[in-house]
Amino acid sequence: MLPRLAAFAILLVLGLADRVDAQPRRGPVVVSPDVNADRRVTFRLLAPKADAVSVFSSDLPGAMQPQALKRGDEGVWELTIGPVEPGTYRYLFNLDGVLLCDPRNQFGSESNGNPWSVVTVPGSDFMDVKDVPHGAVAQVTYRSGVLDRTRRMHVYTPPGYESNAEKYPVFYLLHGAGDSDDSWTSVGRANVILDNLIAAKKAKPMIVVMPMGHTGPFSFIMPTAPGRGGVGNAKFEDEFAKDIVPHIEKNYRVQAGRPNRAIAGLSMGGAQTLDIAFAHPHDYSAIGVFSSGLIFRSTADWEKDRKETLSDPAVKDGLKVFWLATGKDDFLIARSRDTVSFFEKNGFKPTFKETTGGHTWINWQKYLHEFAPLLFQ
Amino acid sequence: MLPRLAAFAILLVLGLADRVDAQPRRGPVVVSPDVNADRRVTFRLLAPKADAVSVFSSDLPGAMQPQALKRGDEGVWELTIGPVEPGTYRYLFNLDGVLLCDPRNQFGSESNGNPWSVVTVPGSDFMDVKDVPHGAVAQVTYRSGVLDRTRRMHVYTPPGYESNAEKYPVFYLLHGAGDSDDSWTSVGRANVILDNLIAAKKAKPMIVVMPMGHTGPFSFIMPTAPGRGGVGNAKFEDEFAKDIVPHIEKNYRVQAGRPNRAIAGLSMGGAQTLDIAFAHPHDYSAIGVFSSGLIFRSTADWEKDRKETLSDPAVKDGLKVFWLATGKDDFLIARSRDTVSFFEKNGFKPTFKETTGGHTWINWQKYLHEFAPLLFQ
Repeated sequence: MLPRLAAFAILLVLGLADRVDAQPRRGPVVVSPDVNADRRVTFRLLAPKADAVSVFSSDLPGAMQPQALKRGDEGVWELTIGPVEPGTYRYLFNLDGVLLCDPRNQFGSESNGNPWSVVTVPGSDFMDVKDVPHGAVAQVTYRSGVLDRTRRMHVYTPPGYESNAEKYPVFYLLHGAGDSDDSWTSVGRANVILDNLIAAKKAKPMIVVMPMGHTGPFSFIMPTAPGRGGVGNAKFEDEFAKDIVPHIEKNYRVQAGRPNRAIAGLSMGGAQTLDIAFAHPHDYSAIGVFSSGLIFRSTADWEKDRKETLSDPAVKDGLKVFWLATGKDDFLIARSRDTVSFFEKNGFKPTFKETTGGHTWINWQKYLHEFAPLLFQ
Repeated sequence: MLPRLAAFAILLVLGLADRVDAQPRRGPVVVSPDVNADRRVTFRLLAPKADAVSVFSSDLPGAMQPQALKRGDEGVWELTIGPVEPGTYRYLFNLDGVLLCDPRNQFGSESNGNPWSVVTVPGSDFMDVKDVPHGAVAQVTYRSGVLDRTRRMHVYTPPGYESNAEKYPVFYLLHGAGDSDDSWTSVGRANVILDNLIAAKKAKPMIVVMPMGHTGPFSFIMPTAPGRGGVGNAKFEDEFAKDIVPHIEKNYRVQAGRPNRAIAGLSMGGAQTLDIAFAHPHDYSAIGVFSSGLIFRSTADWEKDRKETLSDPAVKDGLKVFWLATGKDDFLIARSRDTVSFFEKNGFKPTFKETTGGHTWINWQKYLHEFAPLLFQ
């Protein structure tokens, strides 16, 4: 094998010589991120001319405030953090004011505004990729009549879906304001978490539908330019009911009816979850709200339009799981508590977990791991 | 809707104030890439402290040699190129020697070594996303016994696959040395090209399997650090036969037998295609070689091990499509011509297209568009 590979490498180098020369001069080869056996993570960036380099993450412990990398030999900047709790995290470098993905890291995550680099720290009982049967994650292109354009969603089908003829329950899983339909798998590890739960018989095999919750550009990392499309999630609930659910029910082998339909979301997606579930109060038997609550409007305003639904015994009877979780350090903790009180006042019996931590993916990974086993039992 | 969105935005800004402040100071909001109606593309990067910024692409006309961006007001660097031929292209910025993805562009493409930004110039008859039925692209996780680890492939299933019970022919489509299993869809637009061909009844509905052709790190943009896994594509052919094809045949509704199995690849993947097809000479009825040929070894060495296969009439009889295409400016054009001559000398009748252009994705998009309609007829 070696002579052949060597010949190929030579050919490539010769053939691409002009192109390679056209690139910036190579310095030392750096590895980044470098996840050590003790769960410390080293970030490196080759940037000989930079004045300052830092790493920033919205959820990586040790980098949630920008942390300076230190310049070493030959212009390699470096920082080691941790040990870090096992999980998957997004991060960016800041090079003299420019936020950039790690050029040495081929693993990324989309958002609604900018690409992120992703680092996975192994060692999690439920998030590591294991030698179990795996489901698949499809990027599904569909026509949205409500938005009058082509849209994309991600759909997880459980192990064996393609090779059998069974019907499955459906779990709709919504992302947050800083995410896209890619986020629940690329950083949330939803597919890995479900694979492991299903293999351990802790969760029912299910289809997980992850739509795009924004209907126009939106980003709090990098604001959208004026005139570049609409804002936020206008029309999403309408699209969800008229395009997304029908597309799934038409194209996948789904078990019909309320007992076989669940919905959950994080942050913005948690608020969308409550709006959708109570606009279609006989459609979902399980509701999950992660790091969120009634955050779009005051509870009084929200209540006003839903008096009948909130007092309908059939709505409560068919709601088998009503589960909320928020970290004590989350900026939405007060809204979460208010939301729980509001539903209790209206005769619901929500389960509320106040966990450690904040508004971070490590919490949403854990919440999904705890919530999915409750579904379709 | 507006008051609600406004309230949400305020909440986010308040809640995230500490985090937002921790980020670098924001300057003007830039749009990049900005694809104009006349198919010119403007790249912009906000980098007030940079000494030099350029854009580099392996296949974007006008940027295949690094092109300098010009510093404008408030540190926004800018360059407009084109008009650019409709298609999808990868590019990177070079900021004072650091190659980075465009921080303002959420569309990316993985490779085997570094992330790329991707820009799509609309206006192609066959590559634009149209209002036709769409297939899905799944990221499939599977266990490779040959490599003794978990691996990923991409699988395109045609429109209607999930909602019917039909069986389909299978087209295995391999990537090049600078790519990953993600590349044929994220930059090659294979799913869009197939959607459009199938809708126009120019191609048969088919499953397209896009495996990862590297079995260890490899990259000619950014070389791999020593000791970080194996090199190149050792064992891929073995894995292909023992793990990939069996996984597909077990898990998907496939039509069996040689007439329903095709294989093609670009560059490194084209050479792998020839190796695989002639190691399993009764398995594939169609072979496509894009910008490649027998590039791993000399034709004489390659011939030595395959004397019997090359002279077996049944091998030729069952090979309905043997199609090669390479651009006149491609660094592999001589190897492609030699490969065609070699097979002609051995009694095969390959179709060979010498096209314009070089070793670029725009050519591979076109080749796929031309090749797919020939399959399974």
